[in-house]
Amino acid sequence: MKIDPSKEDLVVQLRETQSRIAPHIHRTPVHRSTMLDQMHGAELFFKCENFQKGGSYKLRGALNAALQLTAPQKQRGVVTHSSGNFAAAVAIASRKLGIPNYIVVPEGATPAKIEAARAYGGNIIATGPTLADRVGAAQRIIDETGATLLHPSNDWNVILGQGTCTTELLAEVGELDACFCPVGGGGVIAGCCLALSAQNSARDAGRQCMVMGGEPMAADDAYRSLVSGQIESNDSTDTIADGLRSQLGDINFPIMQKHVREIVRVSEGEIVAALELLWTRLKVVVEPSSAVSLAAFRKVASQFQGKRVGFILTGGNIDLASLSAVLSGRASAATR
Amino acid sequence: MKIDPSKEDLVVQLRETQSRIAPHIHRTPVHRSTMLDQMHGAELFFKCENFQKGGSYKLRGALNAALQLTAPQKQRGVVTHSSGNFAAAVAIASRKLGIPNYIVVPEGATPAKIEAARAYGGNIIATGPTLADRVGAAQRIIDETGATLLHPSNDWNVILGQGTCTTELLAEVGELDACFCPVGGGGVIAGCCLALSAQNSARDAGRQCMVMGGEPMAADDAYRSLVSGQIESNDSTDTIADGLRSQLGDINFPIMQKHVREIVRVSEGEIVAALELLWTRLKVVVEPSSAVSLAAFRKVASQFQGKRVGFILTGGNIDLASLSAVLSGRASAATR
Repeated sequence: MKIDPSKEDLVVQLRETQSRIAPHIHRTPVHRSTMLDQMHGAELFFKCENFQKGGSYKLRGALNAALQLTAPQKQRGVVTHSSGNFAAAVAIASRKLGIPNYIVVPEGATPAKIEAARAYGGNIIATGPTLADRVGAAQRIIDETGATLLHPSNDWNVILGQGTCTTELLAEVGELDACFCPVGGGGVIAGCCLALSAQNSARDAGRQCMVMGGEPMAADDAYRSLVSGQIESNDSTDTIADGLRSQLGDINFPIMQKHVREIVRVSEGEIVAALELLWTRLKVVVEPSSAVSLAAFRKVASQFQGKRVGFILTGGNIDLASLSAVLSGRASAATR
Repeated sequence: MKIDPSKEDLVVQLRETQSRIAPHIHRTPVHRSTMLDQMHGAELFFKCENFQKGGSYKLRGALNAALQLTAPQKQRGVVTHSSGNFAAAVAIASRKLGIPNYIVVPEGATPAKIEAARAYGGNIIATGPTLADRVGAAQRIIDETGATLLHPSNDWNVILGQGTCTTELLAEVGELDACFCPVGGGGVIAGCCLALSAQNSARDAGRQCMVMGGEPMAADDAYRSLVSGQIESNDSTDTIADGLRSQLGDINFPIMQKHVREIVRVSEGEIVAALELLWTRLKVVVEPSSAVSLAAFRKVASQFQGKRVGFILTGGNIDLASLSAVLSGRASAATR
């Protein structure tokens, strides 16, 4: 494993990742909507990871990391800390490999996501709400059991796994002018960067595909990190996009610094408006975090007239109560 | 056109229908859910017509009928009366063929569906809420313009068109033990009957695929019609399944009498429970009418243990306000 591989090495690593996880995941469809295209004056392509096993792209990275553990490591199991979709992903991956799992879940996590992880065989360990709480709890488990930490977003193999969404999107629809990802812990956008940098390097300057990020105003640590040049954190994370409250890490941040063109920040109202478009026009159930990339695109759509734009619809795990609150225009009530 | 064709003629007509409309429609995907399968002890296959152009299967029948009009008929245009998805379908089909359209919409139709029809180029003519009102309004337009009536469900070519959902489902997943359709005006279930009868006739008795209907208790005219042997109507239609309030016709009813195994009636609560499963497990936005077939299956699931069961998810056009009301458990508030 090489963290800053040559272009050639990266292409090989991405191809090996795809082959490694392909037998275990769904090759999710790319959906389109004539009406959404007309509304925005661009060709939009939505990679529907809400239809992935476990309801999000997270399984890709979890599997890519878990499949490369040694036999003794597998025997001792895996541990993670996640407030949501990565928990279900680790539960599914560890069941598939027949290995023990320890999933540290902080207070305030979305109940539907915890229940899903449990239903997939997740061994749930509750902890306090802060990052320190969950990191501490995970470390105690590692000390006791020798389990291997699978970080939800700051792990080279996890990032490579998440990059396969973008590889598959490009394989299906051909060249894109831009690809929009939501930014939480930075895993999926860093993966997108790797997948695109491998392709972009073979193209001339006029045909580069831009990586664009979308982030809630209320948790804009990644935006601020790119401005300041160091990893920033959030004082509060009062956003409906419950998957985007975490912060970047030292592995994904340099990748983002090198490749992300821009992070566009969006309000809660803009997230809800994009969410409603995805439900009513694309007819797919996505969670608010997924809608952040479309919301970001809509703010800068004038720059992409006539262009081909991809979106990673990251997941579809939502509490019906929150959904109802969102639809009633009471977005803040859905924030936990 | 032959209303009661031989098996051989029917196979030919179905094949011609598929070829005629295929260039103009989406070949919609079939979705599955491991969790829904486990929950019900059967293999479930969902044909996602919510992803069809116009948001429902209705375009299939509208196109099949409109494409067979003569040049003078096309010049005079088409008229229909519909409270919902068939309106959008006729708008799309007539725009595609460049012909005039007249769409009679009764009071009480779902606003999102009327707006969609208008957005697709529908020429909307409002009328009173009763069947007599809308039939009268359509007849006046026919008298004035010479336009051809496209009936939403009681037209041989429309029924053949709707049958292509089932043909495609079988082509994709192979043999099924049963196929569940919602029953409103009877178009999609009659089409399902035709598609399956063509296939069943080539199979021995033990491998016949049953056609099963689902109908709201609150608008159970089709159930009562099969019992009494004559077309019954509804005194009231207070159901959240707004696409299933209409009654059968003299063309589709005999087809249903011959081929439908059973119509299972479901309560409003059972419809909402099925709807929630489709949203949260399958991650697709379907309208309440689509959930009626899953609700019906759930009532008789014990008869289908280990079986392969298909569902036509008929459409995905929903008012967000209604959606919110459903999720809040206030299903009756969503009924207009």
